[in-house]
Amino acid sequence: MYRAPLRELRFVLEELLGSTALSDCPQYAEYSHELGRTILEEAGRFAESVLEPLNRSGDQEGAHWSPDGVRTPAGFKDAYRQFAEGGWPQLGSDPRFGGQPVPQALNNAVQEILASANLAFKLCPMLTHGAVHALSLCASQAQQQQYLPKMISGEWTGTMVLTEPQAGSDLALIRTRAIPEGDHFRLFGQKIFITWGEHDLTENTIHMVLARIDGAPAGTKGISLFIVPKVLIGPDGSLGERNEVRCASIEHKLGIHASPTCVMEYGHDRGAVGYLVGEANHGLEYMFVMMNTARLAVGVEGYAVGERAFQRAAEYARTRVQGKPPGAASATPIIEHPDVRRMLLTMKSCTEASRALALYAGLQLDLGAHHPDEGTRRAALERGELLIPVVKGWCTETGNETAALGVQVHGGMGFVEEAGAAQYVRDVRITTIYEGTTGIQSNDLLGRKLARDRGAAMASLLSEMTAELRAIESAVPTVLRTRDAALQGVALLERATRALLGAMATDAAHGLAVSVPYLKLCGLTIGGWRLAKSAAIAAGGLGGADRAFYEAKIHTAHFYARQVLPQALGLAQIVEGGAESVLEASAEHI
Amino acid sequence: MYRAPLRELRFVLEELLGSTALSDCPQYAEYSHELGRTILEEAGRFAESVLEPLNRSGDQEGAHWSPDGVRTPAGFKDAYRQFAEGGWPQLGSDPRFGGQPVPQALNNAVQEILASANLAFKLCPMLTHGAVHALSLCASQAQQQQYLPKMISGEWTGTMVLTEPQAGSDLALIRTRAIPEGDHFRLFGQKIFITWGEHDLTENTIHMVLARIDGAPAGTKGISLFIVPKVLIGPDGSLGERNEVRCASIEHKLGIHASPTCVMEYGHDRGAVGYLVGEANHGLEYMFVMMNTARLAVGVEGYAVGERAFQRAAEYARTRVQGKPPGAASATPIIEHPDVRRMLLTMKSCTEASRALALYAGLQLDLGAHHPDEGTRRAALERGELLIPVVKGWCTETGNETAALGVQVHGGMGFVEEAGAAQYVRDVRITTIYEGTTGIQSNDLLGRKLARDRGAAMASLLSEMTAELRAIESAVPTVLRTRDAALQGVALLERATRALLGAMATDAAHGLAVSVPYLKLCGLTIGGWRLAKSAAIAAGGLGGADRAFYEAKIHTAHFYARQVLPQALGLAQIVEGGAESVLEASAEHI
Repeated sequence: MYRAPLRELRFVLEELLGSTALSDCPQYAEYSHELGRTILEEAGRFAESVLEPLNRSGDQEGAHWSPDGVRTPAGFKDAYRQFAEGGWPQLGSDPRFGGQPVPQALNNAVQEILASANLAFKLCPMLTHGAVHALSLCASQAQQQQYLPKMISGEWTGTMVLTEPQAGSDLALIRTRAIPEGDHFRLFGQKIFITWGEHDLTENTIHMVLARIDGAPAGTKGISLFIVPKVLIGPDGSLGERNEVRCASIEHKLGIHASPTCVMEYGHDRGAVGYLVGEANHGLEYMFVMMNTARLAVGVEGYAVGERAFQRAAEYARTRVQGKPPGAASATPIIEHPDVRRMLLTMKSCTEASRALALYAGLQLDLGAHHPDEGTRRAALERGELLIPVVKGWCTETGNETAALGVQVHGGMGFVEEAGAAQYVRDVRITTIYEGTTGIQSNDLLGRKLARDRGAAMASLLSEMTAELRAIESAVPTVLRTRDAALQGVALLERATRALLGAMATDAAHGLAVSVPYLKLCGLTIGGWRLAKSAAIAAGGLGGADRAFYEAKIHTAHFYARQVLPQALGLAQIVEGGAESVLEASAEHI
Repeated sequence: MYRAPLRELRFVLEELLGSTALSDCPQYAEYSHELGRTILEEAGRFAESVLEPLNRSGDQEGAHWSPDGVRTPAGFKDAYRQFAEGGWPQLGSDPRFGGQPVPQALNNAVQEILASANLAFKLCPMLTHGAVHALSLCASQAQQQQYLPKMISGEWTGTMVLTEPQAGSDLALIRTRAIPEGDHFRLFGQKIFITWGEHDLTENTIHMVLARIDGAPAGTKGISLFIVPKVLIGPDGSLGERNEVRCASIEHKLGIHASPTCVMEYGHDRGAVGYLVGEANHGLEYMFVMMNTARLAVGVEGYAVGERAFQRAAEYARTRVQGKPPGAASATPIIEHPDVRRMLLTMKSCTEASRALALYAGLQLDLGAHHPDEGTRRAALERGELLIPVVKGWCTETGNETAALGVQVHGGMGFVEEAGAAQYVRDVRITTIYEGTTGIQSNDLLGRKLARDRGAAMASLLSEMTAELRAIESAVPTVLRTRDAALQGVALLERATRALLGAMATDAAHGLAVSVPYLKLCGLTIGGWRLAKSAAIAAGGLGGADRAFYEAKIHTAHFYARQVLPQALGLAQIVEGGAESVLEASAEHI
């Protein structure tokens, strides 16, 4: 039974982030911790009672394709209706069109709850939110007025339509054609991997499609963004005839079976009607504008599934009686076995470190977008952008490891689908792939974020982390040990960053050969900083009514410092000395 | 398309192990490298042409249960017929009953090939081999004569029947009853997780069942081993009536769908007829006798699936064109991207290290069983027994990581089942679970292997590794760098072992809280020793016709030394300082 971790989310949002800077943003003048709590509690209720019960049945049944369209698994249509009626699509959307602006960090906390309960379902509103975001930032006022109210109310959904068979990570290779015709374009092309590209939850779906206008320059500078509605909309806003938008098939996937991953065909005869967004040939820029929030959201999914896997494994470990740990007279619940406890603490501490990191990054994006002071705004945006590939890459890789440990805690039952642990392994695997694989994130971290400012944003983060950790004092010895380990981690990251910047100055390929280990080192050590700070805050709460919660926080952070963070030693050594072993080998050696 | 890695297997068996000690064993007087090559080539042909084509179809179709029994997927029955006709069940079995004795290491190499091509299929003969092994060692001559010829010819299969719903890792909790009746017993009980417990490949299946004779002592000392044939056998050896052996259902699992995992019911009326093997109440001992070979076999499965995942990922990376690596003018095959190459080299080097470790352990078991000199025999057996949990635990954990990287190399296609990469992730997950989870292996390594002789067998291995590495000289600088890294790894293992033995002397739980990190440290560093030795041998072959093969070996070992082995730094620190963070936390903190 999933339980939204409300106490933990409140801790991170109110006590750990605890930023008063947000209240300086006019955008969030009316936001308060009380409002945040109410939203989280309602999200928890909805996820626990409506989404969680559909998670396994949706996985077993999957989405159904027919030439007439895609039918979602039993219960999904009704759940979506309740989702829209509850006003959830409005969260974090433009208030001019019915949206409710909330801080990114709170929105991410809500997203976590939805993803923990039912990742496949959650992807539909997430993609819609991405489309809404793109329209809010880049579309004309007339377009916004036509589409946004119904997308923000949840009456229509939206998609992001990028990939083609020959153009995945490399969007320069996109071939879908757009031919001008009066005030619109006619699109022709096949797109793949379109999440929730076709379904029966709503009457209309607004596709945001990347295509190439005839005669546009080759490569990334010739790609434009189009609005392509599934059903055309009359001047009065009523639904008209079907556009030439067809789902040719859906993929049979490892996980997220309830989420239709569609092969979409645009234009089988006269062409699909599409409306240009913004200027021609600026499509990729527009897509990248919302990449940060999308990647942050996927990072959240990684640990959200980890959280769910942890809860299930802990529940199993408390009830399954098997074997005698040292000192026990008879068989005990397996949670008493040191190795089972080690696995559970790994799952718990990595999830908490990921969450603390991701919500911190969300706060930076908020301040970077809305803080009235330009200096604060710029610094926050730079830090947020630096952290996004780390959140996306590290939290999803860690989510995969966590889900795998969840199976392992179950022993033989973990391999049986009925137990539920295996589904998390299958579902979470997508998070290291879509919105850019971990390799793509690490290229972004090095090639764009670190190289662009020659490590200035990273240097600023490193010195803030060091200063903050050094300032931690506590009467609790465990907290001091955790602090020292976190400081050691930050020092390793500093050393590795210096080595990397030096090597990249003469050879870009050098960095790319150790970019994923560097990304992991970042996640691991920044997560260590966040948890050490959590422990210090928790130590201050030991005298109060929530003693058990704070004690657990201190233990979890300590475990992370002693059994997870030491990985940083190896990762730093790989970053500093591992590149040549990749670069010296050629394709023939593989 | 799977290709058995014959050149690599020959390298490990002939050049790396290259032991002449085997020829001192009368058992293997007639064994030669030429015979070994012939067997490997034939195994490769069979696996490539018969088993590999059924791997995906078997996964998709799965095994079918009905009240009348289990039907295997299309093609499996015919494949099994060819398997038996080819004489494969005879390999490594008792020659008195038609078996063909071959060294364990060669047999493991054959097992790898079968498991790479079709893990689900391979489990059936593997379980039969386990039952044959148990009967060869523990059954009466009459029993051996009755069962072994038909099991070794492949006419009948065999199973290992241990687990009950309440008795998994903890076999002391077994409840299945055995009631004496004349020259046999009547068994009553439900067993679960019985691999290939029921199927249509053969007319009869011989179940090796653990049960408790009425009045036997509680716990592990009251468990006996019984032969329970699916179909009873007349005095003339002909098949008689059905025994009370019934498959109640099969599990729906994450992977190995073609392998029926059965809930078995023994005795629904008068009881299933069972024949006691050996002495009453010694059943667990008999099972443990064959545990070493079974665990070694599962360790081999771990990297066998890794090898298959690597081959598929490398094939994809050579043909998929996407993105420009630094210095390229246009999009290239993704194998040219440094991060893709890093992933492929991780897969390749971890697979090679696992194989080199596992076949070395197989050789030790061979010498430990058959060498004429008692001292040699005892030392080899101790080393083999020390290494078994490392092979089982580390090669399977590594196999899981390798299969996951295989998906990652495929990007979005990796998540689509059609591409085949995802099946390896699903299939290989079982290898860290059955025959004892990684946690159970690590308990065995510490609690039994390390504690029993106070680290003597480990100390002997450590000094041999150190001496052998120090003796490596080479004109190839890469080989020297690899050697130095391997030495550093061995030194870390030595230090961690010393710390662990010290801590365990006062507190057994201490070791159990870091036992899996210690097991991984062992696998990683012993694998590093094996690969450094491989590189030194390969350097000697650079002048010959196989230059490309040897060059690749040197690069792979170097990559492992620089990008995999550094993990040892963190693992050693966890072993030395991680236990208290587990032991101080209680169940309430989780």
